[in-house]
Amino acid sequence: MTELLTERSGRVATARKLTRRAGRDAAGLFLAEGRQAVSEALAAGAVTELFATEAAAAAHADLLAGAPVRLVTEKAAAGLSETASPQGLVAVCPLRDVPAASLATAPPRLAVALAELNDPGNAGTVLRTADACGAGAVVFGAGSADPFQGKTVRSSAGSLFHLDVVRSAPLEPLLADVRAAGVTVLAAAGDGETTLPEAGDAGLLAGPVLWLFGNEARGLDPALAALADHRVRVPMRGRAESLNLAVAAGICLYATQLAG
Amino acid sequence: MTELLTERSGRVATARKLTRRAGRDAAGLFLAEGRQAVSEALAAGAVTELFATEAAAAAHADLLAGAPVRLVTEKAAAGLSETASPQGLVAVCPLRDVPAASLATAPPRLAVALAELNDPGNAGTVLRTADACGAGAVVFGAGSADPFQGKTVRSSAGSLFHLDVVRSAPLEPLLADVRAAGVTVLAAAGDGETTLPEAGDAGLLAGPVLWLFGNEARGLDPALAALADHRVRVPMRGRAESLNLAVAAGICLYATQLAG
Repeated sequence: MTELLTERSGRVATARKLTRRAGRDAAGLFLAEGRQAVSEALAAGAVTELFATEAAAAAHADLLAGAPVRLVTEKAAAGLSETASPQGLVAVCPLRDVPAASLATAPPRLAVALAELNDPGNAGTVLRTADACGAGAVVFGAGSADPFQGKTVRSSAGSLFHLDVVRSAPLEPLLADVRAAGVTVLAAAGDGETTLPEAGDAGLLAGPVLWLFGNEARGLDPALAALADHRVRVPMRGRAESLNLAVAAGICLYATQLAG
Repeated sequence: MTELLTERSGRVATARKLTRRAGRDAAGLFLAEGRQAVSEALAAGAVTELFATEAAAAAHADLLAGAPVRLVTEKAAAGLSETASPQGLVAVCPLRDVPAASLATAPPRLAVALAELNDPGNAGTVLRTADACGAGAVVFGAGSADPFQGKTVRSSAGSLFHLDVVRSAPLEPLLADVRAAGVTVLAAAGDGETTLPEAGDAGLLAGPVLWLFGNEARGLDPALAALADHRVRVPMRGRAESLNLAVAAGICLYATQLAG
């Protein structure tokens, strides 16, 4: 019988530090929990260590065949989880962020920059949507949620492993650099001077585009929005004051995908 | 000095029962918390009682001028809150759901039906999006989240008060009735036979439309999807397996708004 690692084992205690941002930054590693995230991490060749409870190892035997799994107690697995219902399956992965400069040297057809996005669930949803719409990169501006925290990894539904991610980037110089590289920078703003259909009609969505989205409650800082080529609003017909940020991003990114 | 109601007062204890669905159903009332929800509830003439802490009453004096506010202790307000950070301002409102039959007798240009939508935050986001896109009604099928629970009310950002809401509706007969009334029923399904742009090109989004959305994880029950006129998928260019449900709904509803 294999001995299970407990929460007191050195390996588990070391991995547990990755549930905090300071721990992730110090080690250059993060945790991906659950079948979907672990599956994508394995497919991306991005797993340095893999922990599973006996129950999870049995349930996901197909996925884990050949992978160097370390069996852990339920309590140890719960300590590595950032969710209310631990899934018993956690991979340790190298941080995957790339330098901001890559966006200007080789601009993808579609990229996203997030300014002060606070909610980790929203951050993951935007990653997932950006992936679905064929984006090549998502930039998390300084002050935004950490894309490598547990809730974001989970709500990205694996998409974190499909995209280039830039972390803690100062956005002002980035916007200037990508504009100089020929990218159209569009700021999503409820009071934007251009509607999304007008942006489409004007051909603004066809070339390399970087969409800039702001904070869930406060929207985009006007000083930052002013650095974009255009400020674009999603026209609304009803009485809602605004759209949820992840929904607005979804509408803008989908429209851009269609125009490409 | 006005005496504050505590959590032991009869009025507060009675209102506290509305944090549970059984209590809401028994009383025919629900709670709307925070400035935005209370503001919309007052504008809709839908407030039977209003509780505020002294701090909240002072902070929202403009909103509450002339309203019959009962001052409560911080602890009493926290007991009426379904959020981690109580806002100290809670309105009691009559349940606003309308009979499902209204959708067939007077079909709105755009309506939404939710089958087994579980997450209360998603439910509120869909309400907000439906409102923004000019929808007239949102139907919560039997087994879906309760639109009148605290987290849904909050994430709807006031939109709950702008729309007709149908609760606990059996969807099979509803779909048959609205189709007989000339409404095009479109089921959002990842494996749908028609893409969203194709649906637009075919004119399917122009007439009265009811969109049917399924569960966050499992999607739509195929037997239910089969009752729609068409099953529609949002085309995806990237590697994500699917879109977040609220994002997918936003894309479908926005496309329908544009076509109207």
